[in-house]
Amino acid sequence: MSLTVFRKAHFNAAHRLYKEGWDDEKNFEVFGKCSNPHYHGHNYELEVGLTGEIDPETGFLMNLKTLSKIIKEEVEEPFDHKNLNEEVPEFKKLNPTVENIAVVIWNKLRKRIDEKFEISVKLYETPRNFVIYTGP
Amino acid sequence: MSLTVFRKAHFNAAHRLYKEGWDDEKNFEVFGKCSNPHYHGHNYELEVGLTGEIDPETGFLMNLKTLSKIIKEEVEEPFDHKNLNEEVPEFKKLNPTVENIAVVIWNKLRKRIDEKFEISVKLYETPRNFVIYTGP
Amino acid sequence: MSLTVFRKAHFNAAHRLYKEGWDDEKNFEVFGKCSNPHYHGHNYELEVGLTGEIDPETGFLMNLKTLSKIIKEEVEEPFDHKNLNEEVPEFKKLNPTVENIAVVIWNKLRKRIDEKFEISVKLYETPRNFVIYTGP
Amino acid sequence: MSLTVFRKAHFNAAHRLYKEGWDDEKNFEVFGKCSNPHYHGHNYELEVGLTGEIDPETGFLMNLKTLSKIIKEEVEEPFDHKNLNEEVPEFKKLNPTVENIAVVIWNKLRKRIDEKFEISVKLYETPRNFVIYTGP
Amino acid sequence: MSLTVFRKAHFNAAHRLYKEGWDDEKNFEVFGKCSNPHYHGHNYELEVGLTGEIDPETGFLMNLKTLSKIIKEEVEEPFDHKNLNEEVPEFKKLNPTVENIAVVIWNKLRKRIDEKFEISVKLYETPRNFVIYTGP
Amino acid sequence: MSLTVFRKAHFNAAHRLYKEGWDDEKNFEVFGKCSNPHYHGHNYELEVGLTGEIDPETGFLMNLKTLSKIIKEEVEEPFDHKNLNEEVPEFKKLNPTVENIAVVIWNKLRKRIDEKFEISVKLYETPRNFVIYTGP
Repeated sequence: MSLTVFRKAHFNAAHRLYKEGWDDEKNFEVFGKCSNPHYHGHNYELEVGLTGEIDPETGFLMNLKTLSKIIKEEVEEPFDHKNLNEEVPEFKKLNPTVENIAVVIWNKLRKRIDEKFEISVKLYETPRNFVIYTGP
Repeated sequence: MSLTVFRKAHFNAAHRLYKEGWDDEKNFEVFGKCSNPHYHGHNYELEVGLTGEIDPETGFLMNLKTLSKIIKEEVEEPFDHKNLNEEVPEFKKLNPTVENIAVVIWNKLRKRIDEKFEISVKLYETPRNFVIYTGP
Repeated sequence: MSLTVFRKAHFNAAHRLYKEGWDDEKNFEVFGKCSNPHYHGHNYELEVGLTGEIDPETGFLMNLKTLSKIIKEEVEEPFDHKNLNEEVPEFKKLNPTVENIAVVIWNKLRKRIDEKFEISVKLYETPRNFVIYTGP
Repeated sequence: MSLTVFRKAHFNAAHRLYKEGWDDEKNFEVFGKCSNPHYHGHNYELEVGLTGEIDPETGFLMNLKTLSKIIKEEVEEPFDHKNLNEEVPEFKKLNPTVENIAVVIWNKLRKRIDEKFEISVKLYETPRNFVIYTGP
Repeated sequence: MSLTVFRKAHFNAAHRLYKEGWDDEKNFEVFGKCSNPHYHGHNYELEVGLTGEIDPETGFLMNLKTLSKIIKEEVEEPFDHKNLNEEVPEFKKLNPTVENIAVVIWNKLRKRIDEKFEISVKLYETPRNFVIYTGP
Repeated sequence: MSLTVFRKAHFNAAHRLYKEGWDDEKNFEVFGKCSNPHYHGHNYELEVGLTGEIDPETGFLMNLKTLSKIIKEEVEEPFDHKNLNEEVPEFKKLNPTVENIAVVIWNKLRKRIDEKFEISVKLYETPRNFVIYTGP
């Protein structure tokens, strides 16, 4: 009797899209104004989903306080009010597209959450662009 | 050619999270302020999804009037403006977590809706916490 | 150069609408299913607005951290996950309609916020019913 | 390492639900006020999802500019501010229910988007009624 | 002690923007694709606000059931699933811009609601375009 | 017969809150993590309101195409995907708080829009923090 529980969170960050080894012209051709070297930013809205069995004792899939604490430690504290390219080690070499940010978040959560739960990450870069990643 | 149709509904209810057999201290430890014996409440927002084939005659999966009527009879009338623990028989013994409420709604709808349709229930307890249940 | 800054907050509470001195039948006639003696509940969404001058030194009307702390102490801590009729002293004698809750919140904030700011309170009882109160 | 990227779009259109060969009474019995021969209309909100692999060079699944251009050409230009029954060839014979519109959009996008991507179409007819179609 | 209560409602309708006496070219020049003679349509979302004193006996400004009934009779029944130009008498001669629709709604409500209340009408034509009218 | 028309727009930008002449410690004390010298960013959502008389010939307050073009030229093009502190001349010396950004936008629009219309600017920095400015 599998069910999915979702919890929302959010963080505000600066980034630029940029590929090392490409010159500015090539970066602009592919990434447009997102490649602005002075950065721009977003309010990222995150929905984390956990799929598993309901604990018959509590009626919870997982205590949301525990999940919220993990999201806070793994995502909100390291990403919120940061420059993703400059200050978040995962994006030193990795282009911080919304696709890659979602994969990074999924991998960070995967290490902290019991293997009995499947994880999904839905990440809004804007209200109009978003991704879902459910693991490899 | 399978497709899913969704219909929204809502109900406002009081509840408390509570496990019979645990003392107040243990209930508070697990359920926090949600275990308040005087109850608190929520605006539950519900999205019911039906998956099946489009009827080539009407272009409908199912007439939404029929679906709305079933949701009204099975969910809105028995749950809206009620105290889930005190007044809804399904929760006399079952802890009314959002997980358990979603399963109860799914089971009630399953009895009323043609077996040729798969059912999904998405239930928001708050805009930040919600679950999806698609059956056992 | 007057401007208004808004901050959102929320609390989940149980209540019933009820006038002391009226019998159950009269209460039901006026308040309908909202008068259910077992209570029901809502996710109240609150938008507090402060109107005043921008501080030229900071560019802030008021530091939102300060405002958030006041809202937390005056509204979220005393109201969240509470039964308004039973546990919140302001509603021992006062019917907890969304109108009266908004006035109570405004009065509590007024005592804590510098008189140089005008205060507005927008309170959603549901996504479909809400009030705005800007003081007497 | 499969991931889904979503892009929103919208169009405003008139339509009526109507089955050729049924008389007005029968059409009204099945489609209710949606069968009004003078038409009514909606703000259709569309979410197109593409599932596939992230391009390791760009960090994109697909450049959203390309996707936006395809959605514009296949959906927004032919459907926006149109009468679906009268002016959109696909609905000359096909009842423009939200189900059928979603299938038509999916088919139009399928012809334009590389086969390595799976496509999903979520289409809101109103904020309360919507469908998801992911192909045959 | 004045306060404003808001109630949401909605209707779906077809319309075209068109000035009698102008030829098609002139209508297209001013109204663009909104002048399409085959019509297009919208999900109109309405927020009606009433400003007045709280009734100390009930704690209500006005019983929302009464307000909902008036909105249903004056707006939802005559406008929903209609062609505004063809079927709503107020727009036989009056261009159904969102501005004019809001004024018509305000005038209809004004006749039905006690003069002691001020009325505001907020009308969304799309999530991106809307108007507020508070009377002459 | 005065009425207000609203039009939404949006831009994504990086910024930091910072007062020249204060050291880093003082900036952090007042602006917290918003003072991060590497910048962070937001999806700014803007609602521009114009108040005036309806043109009886068109039924418009103002043609929204004209308003949209002005917003694009004055706000979206100079602010979108920019670093407000580094690249937008108005914020070379002015702290880009949401209060100050709203005032700057209002002043830019005021120069372009006919004096017969009053202007209001509602600017969301996040879905939880926003301001309204209606002029000096």
